[in-house]
Amino acid sequence: MQAIDKIEKIRKEIIKRSKIWISLNGVKRILSAIKTTSNQWLIIRYSYEPINVVNTALNILKEEKIVKVKDENVYFTNIGKKLIKELEINKIENTKCVFCEGRGFKFNFDKNLFKKFFEIQKQRPKPMKVFDQGNVTPQTTFARISLAYNFGDIQNKEILILGAEDDLLGLAIAMTGKAKSVTILDIDKRLIDFDNFWAKKLNLKLNAFVFDLRKKLPNDLLGKFDTFFTDPSETVQAIKGFILKGVASLKGPGCVGYFGFTLKDSSLVKWYQLEKILNKNKIVITEILPDFNHYENWPYLEETRSFKNSLTKKNPNKIIWYTSHWYRIVTLEGFKRVNIDLTKFSGKKFYDDIENSTS
Amino acid sequence: MQAIDKIEKIRKEIIKRSKIWISLNGVKRILSAIKTTSNQWLIIRYSYEPINVVNTALNILKEEKIVKVKDENVYFTNIGKKLIKELEINKIENTKCVFCEGRGFKFNFDKNLFKKFFEIQKQRPKPMKVFDQGNVTPQTTFARISLAYNFGDIQNKEILILGAEDDLLGLAIAMTGKAKSVTILDIDKRLIDFDNFWAKKLNLKLNAFVFDLRKKLPNDLLGKFDTFFTDPSETVQAIKGFILKGVASLKGPGCVGYFGFTLKDSSLVKWYQLEKILNKNKIVITEILPDFNHYENWPYLEETRSFKNSLTKKNPNKIIWYTSHWYRIVTLEGFKRVNIDLTKFSGKKFYDDIENSTS
Repeated sequence: MQAIDKIEKIRKEIIKRSKIWISLNGVKRILSAIKTTSNQWLIIRYSYEPINVVNTALNILKEEKIVKVKDENVYFTNIGKKLIKELEINKIENTKCVFCEGRGFKFNFDKNLFKKFFEIQKQRPKPMKVFDQGNVTPQTTFARISLAYNFGDIQNKEILILGAEDDLLGLAIAMTGKAKSVTILDIDKRLIDFDNFWAKKLNLKLNAFVFDLRKKLPNDLLGKFDTFFTDPSETVQAIKGFILKGVASLKGPGCVGYFGFTLKDSSLVKWYQLEKILNKNKIVITEILPDFNHYENWPYLEETRSFKNSLTKKNPNKIIWYTSHWYRIVTLEGFKRVNIDLTKFSGKKFYDDIENSTS
Repeated sequence: MQAIDKIEKIRKEIIKRSKIWISLNGVKRILSAIKTTSNQWLIIRYSYEPINVVNTALNILKEEKIVKVKDENVYFTNIGKKLIKELEINKIENTKCVFCEGRGFKFNFDKNLFKKFFEIQKQRPKPMKVFDQGNVTPQTTFARISLAYNFGDIQNKEILILGAEDDLLGLAIAMTGKAKSVTILDIDKRLIDFDNFWAKKLNLKLNAFVFDLRKKLPNDLLGKFDTFFTDPSETVQAIKGFILKGVASLKGPGCVGYFGFTLKDSSLVKWYQLEKILNKNKIVITEILPDFNHYENWPYLEETRSFKNSLTKKNPNKIIWYTSHWYRIVTLEGFKRVNIDLTKFSGKKFYDDIENSTS
């Protein structure tokens, strides 16, 4: 069998088992990632395909004797080496800027403030699986502020944070003192208490409320904000619960939203659906920054599908492997405010779908 | 009149005169840009609104005695200062990483190669208005390669460049020696000759042809490439001529295109149309990087609307003020190949529309 036919067969088997679409270039990209690193978590990071897809691919490649596992690391066999030579598979070249961690925007634009935040965030409540939590690094939180500064989306603006306050983004924005107001909604009372504790201690303008975003936003939050931030789970329900509710909270055309979206728990097909939903609602995407969000490893990783289906039992430890893209969107004339009740979805259905491996 | 009502009145007047939509936040952003710099070209750069809109706004603001011109610089009057205080207009904070020029990816990932290219590009043919030319900096050309390296879109790939070879991107990619093939189409014989001269001299794998992209792509270029690059003029016709023809040249689902798009010559409404066209054709946007492309000033600037309608007669000289975003797109299963004849559009109609000021 020709190398390309073999890969096409493997591609079809990946789709059959994972039920997620992948292109031929996607499979080649996974092979490139394996050529670049033997650590399965970095293979996932570099593949830009859903974790489920990469894990399924690794399992199939092992069955086909293309890769082998040694000391919990993944290597090509001789058969594999021959195959990737025929396919002309390259190592992935990392040309990211090391100074800004590849984002283009400084996270340490205010060194003292960052240092202060860094100490505070060490005491944050630990991520919980029931809320699909997993926080970004403090560098990421400040990079988000840095980017939004550049577009004037924080200074003197009224800001809404919809969930994901485990990233402490609302608290960090309040600490800059630049926003007109910061309103934080999160389902986790521990985080709301944490924010309120520091707000009182540091005398910050910040309003933090326990709120289940499956519910409709109360009327007094609709049409009231200039900028929203969120980091949804990657289901269509969560897009509606988090992103579209963020849009519903905006004052009018020309207002701005930021959110994370990843290829780790979503295929390009889901990205396409997201972009279709935005377009239908008369929202324009102005930026999508790759690997902008770096996530710390979360304590419940070993309980997730991403770990259970993985080829090796290596723990990622301190390695940053889960990253996500960061979208910026702007509302146009005629944009729609969608504020629907999603409480019929249980927590698991709200957070979880077939492409998701980390909820 | 309240400050906000005044600004709303000015917003309506801008739309009436320029015939381009702008939001209230857009007008505020222009005021922020004026607070940040007195140089009209940098005001345009920081405004993230079409040049026509910013020029129209500046003229109206002068009529309303909100700004004044002194020594070809733009300043707020006392009336203006009072207004922006009431509106709580801030300076724009520049938090871009200086090491990578704000892109997140190193342009000097191969210092020797960059140096070699830098010397060659000095001899490139000068931009011509008839072809809507205006080249990016050599740093930008290499940053494009750097980004594409990271996604594995160049190494061992068959690559098509559709126009805009005044950026010498096709030549630069060929110089890396990493691509399987590089095919360059451009209407300007001078550039094709330039590429072929260096290809022969440096023994590069490169095929460069004079081609008018308003014409249909020949059949032997359809479905033949892994990755395309282009930098279209910003009309719907040019989107179809450059971007969709690039898509038509791709081998199948999971292939990749890169192109520049700017807010200098397009409103967010045209961005929205672009994104709608992509979505309709089953193409997903994976990255949009702000200010990725830096353009050198072009010799025919004083003949363009951007100069004729401007408030001051200052020449930008060496200042980088014209920037554009850089899109990466991926084809999905079922994507459409659109390859239509656009020769009915004269050169001017192909390059020019109401939002465009630099053609």
